[in-house]
Amino acid sequence: MIRIVLIGAGNVAHHLLQAFSASKLVTVAQVYNHSETGLGQLSFSGKKTTVLEKLEDADAYIMAIPDDAVATVSKALPFSGRLVIHTSGSVPLDAIDPKNNRGVLYPLQTFSKQRHLDYATIPVCLEAESEKDYMLLERLGKAISGQTHRISSEERKQLHLAAVFVCNFVNHLYHIGFEITGKNQLPFSLLLPLIRETASKLDSGTPAELQTGPAKRNDKKTMAKHLDALDLPEHKKIYSLLSEAIQHTYGRKKL
Amino acid sequence: MIRIVLIGAGNVAHHLLQAFSASKLVTVAQVYNHSETGLGQLSFSGKKTTVLEKLEDADAYIMAIPDDAVATVSKALPFSGRLVIHTSGSVPLDAIDPKNNRGVLYPLQTFSKQRHLDYATIPVCLEAESEKDYMLLERLGKAISGQTHRISSEERKQLHLAAVFVCNFVNHLYHIGFEITGKNQLPFSLLLPLIRETASKLDSGTPAELQTGPAKRNDKKTMAKHLDALDLPEHKKIYSLLSEAIQHTYGRKKL
Repeated sequence: MIRIVLIGAGNVAHHLLQAFSASKLVTVAQVYNHSETGLGQLSFSGKKTTVLEKLEDADAYIMAIPDDAVATVSKALPFSGRLVIHTSGSVPLDAIDPKNNRGVLYPLQTFSKQRHLDYATIPVCLEAESEKDYMLLERLGKAISGQTHRISSEERKQLHLAAVFVCNFVNHLYHIGFEITGKNQLPFSLLLPLIRETASKLDSGTPAELQTGPAKRNDKKTMAKHLDALDLPEHKKIYSLLSEAIQHTYGRKKL
Repeated sequence: MIRIVLIGAGNVAHHLLQAFSASKLVTVAQVYNHSETGLGQLSFSGKKTTVLEKLEDADAYIMAIPDDAVATVSKALPFSGRLVIHTSGSVPLDAIDPKNNRGVLYPLQTFSKQRHLDYATIPVCLEAESEKDYMLLERLGKAISGQTHRISSEERKQLHLAAVFVCNFVNHLYHIGFEITGKNQLPFSLLLPLIRETASKLDSGTPAELQTGPAKRNDKKTMAKHLDALDLPEHKKIYSLLSEAIQHTYGRKKL
């Protein structure tokens, strides 16, 4: 049985707590958060503390905290020589204070408190400084997910960057779809089957093989009509830039 | 029983043929295409022709053909006073030659030949010139889908524009994710659970409620690191424009 202490009470902490609590291989010995309010919102019946000095002994300390808190919180830990892990996509392993052994456990997913996630399908990206620590990290990863991957800090940075495009930016395009339908008194739900299929389709080919639409087929007439139909200058700019990018990609237009 | 003739042999024709063939309320009397090659690729054991003059009698003629062929093909039809329908998102109803009664049946989905689609969940957008024709269109729509909607030419144009953002542009962002992972010898499949969840999440909130990421939380340090890590000027441009759009949307930056 691996004993862990979870540090943090945000979305990622909430989901990790659920996933680790469901595993028979891991005990969550304690949860720490700097404020009582955050702690109170977690559904956890075990030990909680807001005082770093009261952290229990554990095999691993998992920090699910904001990126810019990793350095300060890890420095403030009142012990050394133990395994301290962060869970961030964009923070390198060596942002953790070197007085402890350092590791990363990065679940590559988007987390909202209200969503139930099937952790078994989430890729968990692992990094450690020693083979011994890596073995422990891998046991932790496998306790919650069917797929663990050894990913370096540099690779994780690139993955996180790719994730911004395929998740954060994609969601903003959904938002523009929401604005266009809303402005025309059309239900956004009309677009949901299309949105789901666009994502699901990736099972059957690469994005390049699956690209469709006016820009792909160089349909200038439709693109001009669309630009004309858009009200907001920002929407026009995004339409133009992404259409040009598609045209470049499929050889219709030289850079 | 409604007798239809299908005109076209592309992706949309292929899927409509499958959907109508599966319905007990509709008979596909014949399929027309201008070339033998296209016709040969359809799995259809009924009558086929490449000659417009040989079109059979039917209750409705459904054109699943390129946008810019709607006017010419509808004009070339050797009859008048019948119901002629197109299936395009961006073409107005009145692009169909007025010698026939005109209608639109637009399935709001992205079509690839290799994908099996669950037609029952696809919104079918309908438009007709008379109530009598609309009733027939609605029976056709309900024969293949659980949801039909009365949508005007102007509304359909806006829906199609929104679809370009949430499908075509989204797929290009998937492609950029594919390029970033590929360049770093990382499997694109690592991103698939994130991509699926980003789409599925829309069941539990609006895109604005679900927005996450560095631009949303105005994390300038991470955005600067990301811009620095991108090689292609076009990727940098897309990163900047979409990050700024997110910052504007959530009040971090004035336009």
